[in-house]
Amino acid sequence: MAYHLLEREREGGKRLAETLAQAVERIGHCAQCRDFSETELCPTCANGSRERSQLCVVESPADRLAIENATGYRGVYFVLQGRLSPLDGIGPRELGLEQLEQRLAEAEVQELIIATSATVEGEATAHYLAQLARARQVRPSRLAQGLPLGGELEYVDRGTLSHAFGTRSEVRD
Amino acid sequence: MAYHLLEREREGGKRLAETLAQAVERIGHCAQCRDFSETELCPTCANGSRERSQLCVVESPADRLAIENATGYRGVYFVLQGRLSPLDGIGPRELGLEQLEQRLAEAEVQELIIATSATVEGEATAHYLAQLARARQVRPSRLAQGLPLGGELEYVDRGTLSHAFGTRSEVRD
Repeated sequence: MAYHLLEREREGGKRLAETLAQAVERIGHCAQCRDFSETELCPTCANGSRERSQLCVVESPADRLAIENATGYRGVYFVLQGRLSPLDGIGPRELGLEQLEQRLAEAEVQELIIATSATVEGEATAHYLAQLARARQVRPSRLAQGLPLGGELEYVDRGTLSHAFGTRSEVRD
Repeated sequence: MAYHLLEREREGGKRLAETLAQAVERIGHCAQCRDFSETELCPTCANGSRERSQLCVVESPADRLAIENATGYRGVYFVLQGRLSPLDGIGPRELGLEQLEQRLAEAEVQELIIATSATVEGEATAHYLAQLARARQVRPSRLAQGLPLGGELEYVDRGTLSHAFGTRSEVRD
């Protein structure tokens, strides 16, 4: 990219530099959900028609976007910007969990949808968040885990297959 | 492989031909589970210590092997050797479902674990099997579907994410 800009697109390089400088300067965090935002509240948090009784906790802005695009979710979000990882020095404070606790205490939230990744650190974070929620009488929920859609059993990894088999459920009409 | 055998391993080629001919001649289907077997009953069906109250239905011998390797399942299997696909002329008769119905009628089976793939045809087959089971007062169950283990939300396909979000469940202690 650097060679292309220097050889054929010096004007574009200049524009890119300006845009980058502006982004770094202007984009901060939404005061409510900690997602990136140019304004104090991001468009989702500022949107009066979103359901405030459902709060979905995600690890990153990219995860927030994935849920927003894939589902019909109409509630609001809280972006951790990471996950609990004591070895890397990332604890509750770095993830803004004090701010999350305050929101749970405001009694507006009824369901805390924990949408952290299905990785070891994501699970540890989910466990911690579920405890936080229960302490404030908020119902914690977690995305389903198991076989991915379209998955052929033969090609699914062993851990997922074992988990899906162990958590099988009765089929109802 | 053919060139290698012709150039350097004529003896091996001969052995391979014999083994293949023997396999084609000797290997039939297990009379109980329809899996490939050299004997009338495959080793799993002949094993007296397997739990006969749980019957796990899979599409192929490879799926049976995957479950056997990944889980601690101690019940028995039924191998469809395919899945319902009317357009390809594969109906209940081709999958040996009459034989399955007979086994369900024998009242030994209490749970029918439906482990077909999470594909469209696998789902249709699962639906049909669940109806069969209920008609015989057998409890049908299905492997869990959702995010695969170790899955980062951002990289999970849209359908799986939407399904996992929709079927989220409350977190309990």
